[in-house]
Amino acid sequence: MTVRALVFDVFGTLVDWRSGVAREAARLLAPYAPSLDAGAFADAWRGRYGPSMETVRSGARPFVDLDTLQAESLPEVLTRFGIAGVPDAVRRELVQAWHRLDTWPEVPDSLRRLRARHLLAPNSNGHVRLMADLARRNGLVFDAILGAGYSRDYKPKPALYRDAVAAFGFAPAETLMVAAHSDDLAAAASHGLSTAHIARPREHGPGGGETAPKVPVTYAAQDLAELADQLGC
Amino acid sequence: MTVRALVFDVFGTLVDWRSGVAREAARLLAPYAPSLDAGAFADAWRGRYGPSMETVRSGARPFVDLDTLQAESLPEVLTRFGIAGVPDAVRRELVQAWHRLDTWPEVPDSLRRLRARHLLAPNSNGHVRLMADLARRNGLVFDAILGAGYSRDYKPKPALYRDAVAAFGFAPAETLMVAAHSDDLAAAASHGLSTAHIARPREHGPGGGETAPKVPVTYAAQDLAELADQLGC
Repeated sequence: MTVRALVFDVFGTLVDWRSGVAREAARLLAPYAPSLDAGAFADAWRGRYGPSMETVRSGARPFVDLDTLQAESLPEVLTRFGIAGVPDAVRRELVQAWHRLDTWPEVPDSLRRLRARHLLAPNSNGHVRLMADLARRNGLVFDAILGAGYSRDYKPKPALYRDAVAAFGFAPAETLMVAAHSDDLAAAASHGLSTAHIARPREHGPGGGETAPKVPVTYAAQDLAELADQLGC
Repeated sequence: MTVRALVFDVFGTLVDWRSGVAREAARLLAPYAPSLDAGAFADAWRGRYGPSMETVRSGARPFVDLDTLQAESLPEVLTRFGIAGVPDAVRRELVQAWHRLDTWPEVPDSLRRLRARHLLAPNSNGHVRLMADLARRNGLVFDAILGAGYSRDYKPKPALYRDAVAAFGFAPAETLMVAAHSDDLAAAASHGLSTAHIARPREHGPGGGETAPKVPVTYAAQDLAELADQLGC
């Protein structure tokens, strides 16, 4: 079946969250933690991401966006690194670090190629403003912003995949979920979407990242340019 | 207060639905209605738009998108014009007429100017795919698609205005609702949004269109280029 629309995981798949968060944390926390291991700080903050979303996924609280969750997780991360005295204004700027991330190098050109023949949208746990800011910063053009803001829930809840299919109106198999994370692709496949795995071996820095899918996928590529090749773009 | 984001009504404000629907109806219905008054046909179909949405607004049925509503309204319009024997495939193509509309002439350039300093999104009763198709056809770039698809309801229900503000995260008064229809702007203003009226004197063809706002607005312009001037873009 022909792929008509591509929907993308963003953090790790399109953008290098670790380098960007580390860069902003080093800059903003320099007065409070001069010898900070900023990469480890980024990893620790990202480590709170899954558990923080679970409170929404489980229905324990109504939907709140990722800025809210990141702000709530921050004090615990600061404490773990022994950092004290960070003013509220600096904490707010730290949350904005997630809006100031750069893409992996091949992404902007590859998205332009893919968009010539397909509809494109992020299907991320980031909300509308976060996706819009990342797109602007990196010169990305999407046809819509789907994902957590659109579905008021977090992956891997079914709504995210079903709504992404319904929003563009193609058959599930004509909608390609693109991610560097096998669990995201397994969830997408369970709702009938086609899937593409992108290797991001440095997503977690020294901690690595997925170099190949751990689940059956429709496409597997070393980067987004290779996926565009595979789709004939 | 500075305007940070613009959200747009689309049918009538950005695109000339009457000419486009009439063009497609004349083309597709020629074998079944050789002497069709295609403009009147477009007006009649558009006339069903409000009542058809009311079934969703009232809660009498769950959200269905505008393609569904237009398809449901079509048989009644065909009957009123005495047109019979139109096959299902042609009916489906007629519904697609709403995806093949052209903007008013100044719109693409004006949106480019406005986007240099503001976030932009449609806040229309059209759903994601419909907005994406109209944007592609006319070379428009938006930062997100808000409106009926995002809110699962139809203007002037409060969710459409509240969600449009929340999606970009600015203050309500920093979010500018742009429309050629005073009732849409009155609803937006009741939720604290700033408002801009665009004159579209030919929206309804010979039937006219609003040449000036009937309610208090923040900005009033003869077209989108004039609004961009007023905003200093």
